[in-house]
Amino acid sequence: MEIVTSKPTLKRLPQYYKIVCQLQDSDKEFISSAQLAKIMGIDESQVRRDFSSIKLKGKSSAGFKKDYLKKYLESVLGLKVAKDIFIVGVGNLGSAIACCDNNERYGLNVLALFDYDQSKVDTKIAGKTVFHLSRLPNLAFRLNVKTAVLTVPKYQAQEVTDFLVASGIKAIWNFTQCNLQVPEDVLVKDEDILDSFIDFSISISQTLNIWENACNIGLAG
Amino acid sequence: MEIVTSKPTLKRLPQYYKIVCQLQDSDKEFISSAQLAKIMGIDESQVRRDFSSIKLKGKSSAGFKKDYLKKYLESVLGLKVAKDIFIVGVGNLGSAIACCDNNERYGLNVLALFDYDQSKVDTKIAGKTVFHLSRLPNLAFRLNVKTAVLTVPKYQAQEVTDFLVASGIKAIWNFTQCNLQVPEDVLVKDEDILDSFIDFSISISQTLNIWENACNIGLAG
Repeated sequence: MEIVTSKPTLKRLPQYYKIVCQLQDSDKEFISSAQLAKIMGIDESQVRRDFSSIKLKGKSSAGFKKDYLKKYLESVLGLKVAKDIFIVGVGNLGSAIACCDNNERYGLNVLALFDYDQSKVDTKIAGKTVFHLSRLPNLAFRLNVKTAVLTVPKYQAQEVTDFLVASGIKAIWNFTQCNLQVPEDVLVKDEDILDSFIDFSISISQTLNIWENACNIGLAG
Repeated sequence: MEIVTSKPTLKRLPQYYKIVCQLQDSDKEFISSAQLAKIMGIDESQVRRDFSSIKLKGKSSAGFKKDYLKKYLESVLGLKVAKDIFIVGVGNLGSAIACCDNNERYGLNVLALFDYDQSKVDTKIAGKTVFHLSRLPNLAFRLNVKTAVLTVPKYQAQEVTDFLVASGIKAIWNFTQCNLQVPEDVLVKDEDILDSFIDFSISISQTLNIWENACNIGLAG
């Protein structure tokens, strides 16, 4: 399929995709252009032009079928390869991600898990097999997996990263809280589950009226 | 201590606090007003006026001691109560949060963990005792804990939430992916560790040049 579209449309496609993902949990089977336009704060005719430029069809009077729209945008955005992932490090966090209810909603597709620990090898987590890390290069090549979720302990993080890079992994979702060194063509996204705790604790403090009472803060003038 | 300050200053205090938290890992012992001003994109004299208005002293030529600055801002912002937390639900995710290396950096202070499961009760995770959930009301009252991290399975989420609310918990960090029903005076922050996966997969797709190749997308004139 050949698609010719504009840069602004290309920028909006990921936004449509995010909205469609977020709406997967709703009861409705269809999403309308009007609904998307409203959430995006743009004109409905723009949504229709965008979709027409990527040759998106199948619109009924009720709108687009959610599943169809999600799959179509995934295909246009080339998300298939990004979605197929390995989890490297089968501790609490790696297991939690593998088990996460929402994986399907987000299109995260965990193909296998890996660990050094022989006691974990050949067990299953959320229906996926745990392999010894030494088997990763071969499986990454055969399954065309380019993305790894890194949930090993901090002290192993760089060593395992070097191994992943040598195995052809091109994108690492890094939960290790290490500043990983990678070649230029490898993408690292640092993640920290406690990152939003500061915002949370500040809003707690404000909500509970602790803030202004803590030190008798008064407003000047 | 009586503090009289302006609304804009009150708005900047949490921002200073976040920056100081983020800089905890750096090697330097001191943070200067100039450094804070640069990160915030404001004038250095503004930083000095803000700090002077909250009676923050102890500045040497090198700047403020990081630990001192963090503790001082925590005290002014009343974050102590927000930081003392219980983890409710000792599965993979609850355990991962309890073990998280970064807890101290963020000022998260896990006082105890709770679960229904008798096989987990009286075990320890990251040095903290796991109690039966029935003991939470008493401990919350005695330790003045108002904040809970909710990591129970989805099907228990609302029932446990009702119990937490009845126990005096006023803020819930909700990892259950349930839409919790709470009274107006209870704060819920919904968290999803996979929330940023969509952004990540889109940037992977762009980085790996899959995007434009996926469907032969071309740019119109």
